[in-house]
Amino acid sequence: MSPRGTGPDFIEALARGLDVIKAFDAARPTLSMSEVAARTGLARPTARRILLTLEELGYVRAGESGYTLTPRVVELGMAYVHSTGLWELARPHMEDLVRLTGESSSVGQLDGSDIVYVARVAVPKIIALAVTIGTRFPATSTSLGKVMLADLDPQQVDEVLAEPSRSGVTVQRTPGPADLHRELAEIRERGWCLTDQALAAGVRSVATAIRGADGRTLAALNVTVHAAETTVETLVEEHLPHLLATAAAISDDIARRAAIPSVQTT
Amino acid sequence: MSPRGTGPDFIEALARGLDVIKAFDAARPTLSMSEVAARTGLARPTARRILLTLEELGYVRAGESGYTLTPRVVELGMAYVHSTGLWELARPHMEDLVRLTGESSSVGQLDGSDIVYVARVAVPKIIALAVTIGTRFPATSTSLGKVMLADLDPQQVDEVLAEPSRSGVTVQRTPGPADLHRELAEIRERGWCLTDQALAAGVRSVATAIRGADGRTLAALNVTVHAAETTVETLVEEHLPHLLATAAAISDDIARRAAIPSVQTT
Repeated sequence: MSPRGTGPDFIEALARGLDVIKAFDAARPTLSMSEVAARTGLARPTARRILLTLEELGYVRAGESGYTLTPRVVELGMAYVHSTGLWELARPHMEDLVRLTGESSSVGQLDGSDIVYVARVAVPKIIALAVTIGTRFPATSTSLGKVMLADLDPQQVDEVLAEPSRSGVTVQRTPGPADLHRELAEIRERGWCLTDQALAAGVRSVATAIRGADGRTLAALNVTVHAAETTVETLVEEHLPHLLATAAAISDDIARRAAIPSVQTT
Repeated sequence: MSPRGTGPDFIEALARGLDVIKAFDAARPTLSMSEVAARTGLARPTARRILLTLEELGYVRAGESGYTLTPRVVELGMAYVHSTGLWELARPHMEDLVRLTGESSSVGQLDGSDIVYVARVAVPKIIALAVTIGTRFPATSTSLGKVMLADLDPQQVDEVLAEPSRSGVTVQRTPGPADLHRELAEIRERGWCLTDQALAAGVRSVATAIRGADGRTLAALNVTVHAAETTVETLVEEHLPHLLATAAAISDDIARRAAIPSVQTT
């Protein structure tokens, strides 16, 4: 368990409940009450009450061999994806992009030092990055991540990168701070980022920013190709112009939506 | 707020925290503390403590105009998708299926009376169902849902369908109980289900079961086509055999994985 605050306002029961949801994974899709207690560091009676609460809310199901999560849990995760409205807004533009390039396209956002995939339109290929909504990679190893980092000032970049990655992925080549800051300045200047087999051999990608009405980078959009099929030249000369046009069209839609008088009353 | 138990083991703080996460949506991506309180029916001090806790855990972010969810929330939802292992296991088979048919394929599971999409490999098309992982539809309006329902006994079907849909989708044509039970018996007998423009005009799909090692239906797999492009005959004669072979291959993989001695010690 990660260290966390115990201020008077911190609700431990909520933090523990979320830990229990995350205790289930592919290696352990079914957990007994004792296993949940062991994996989360909770006392058994606490684990029991949390499981009973989650069961009553429909997020876990009790079976013969233990507890499993239910598909209702997905609703929680999609609360984020739907709340941004990015998926609904970007999807038609991403589909056009995928038709034009014949390659997969993703949208990612920063969470700490990771990039998280929040939208994706894929073409089926024999070799493909096993990426889905919610997949995370260290931001510095991806074109999406570097485009997001390029919008931050150097101090913010250092703060963000000080957070440990939650991706479970270890990156071989981490650029030193000076090299990274120089690269991010170039990306900011140029408006796009190319990565050539940095995260995985055989994968090249080019990414650019999706901007909010205020001009800040809201998310990054990329096109991914196979190194064996597509040269860097093709990626930059043929796919990049489509990518830039698509990101501009999504950014325009966001600005248009922002211009709609808000009914929000705070 | 839905009525729910207040037994001695029920942890209200956990239930309320999850309600706060779900209070954010596309119409309200940013909420003030008062708005969160109003939308969840919580007292303002309670809403405040929950928001501070979620902020400390990295699930919400406080900005000038209020609170927003962070991409970390997606991690919760994907806990389910990864815990089943279905995505990792089904994905390569689904990609083969999409290459063979040239059409999109999805995997869905029941949650109450809804079908929830838990895996999808899509082809970019001008007209497409705006479906992503976590999308839900009333089960009786989809081929995926009817395949899942066909594995339940009639009493279980009635129980499941008594739950209100959480999809926000209203279905025009709901079959009467007698017709539905007859149709489900036919699907069970035949091993697959075809729906022709039931959920949306222009969309046809055919689905079949993905089975666990015990033979029970774990999930449903479909292929979706456009009515204007693909006739029912093509769907049944050309795509269905590929669909059945793919579902069998996924089920075989599941049985093989189940045969691996489990390290689980309960």
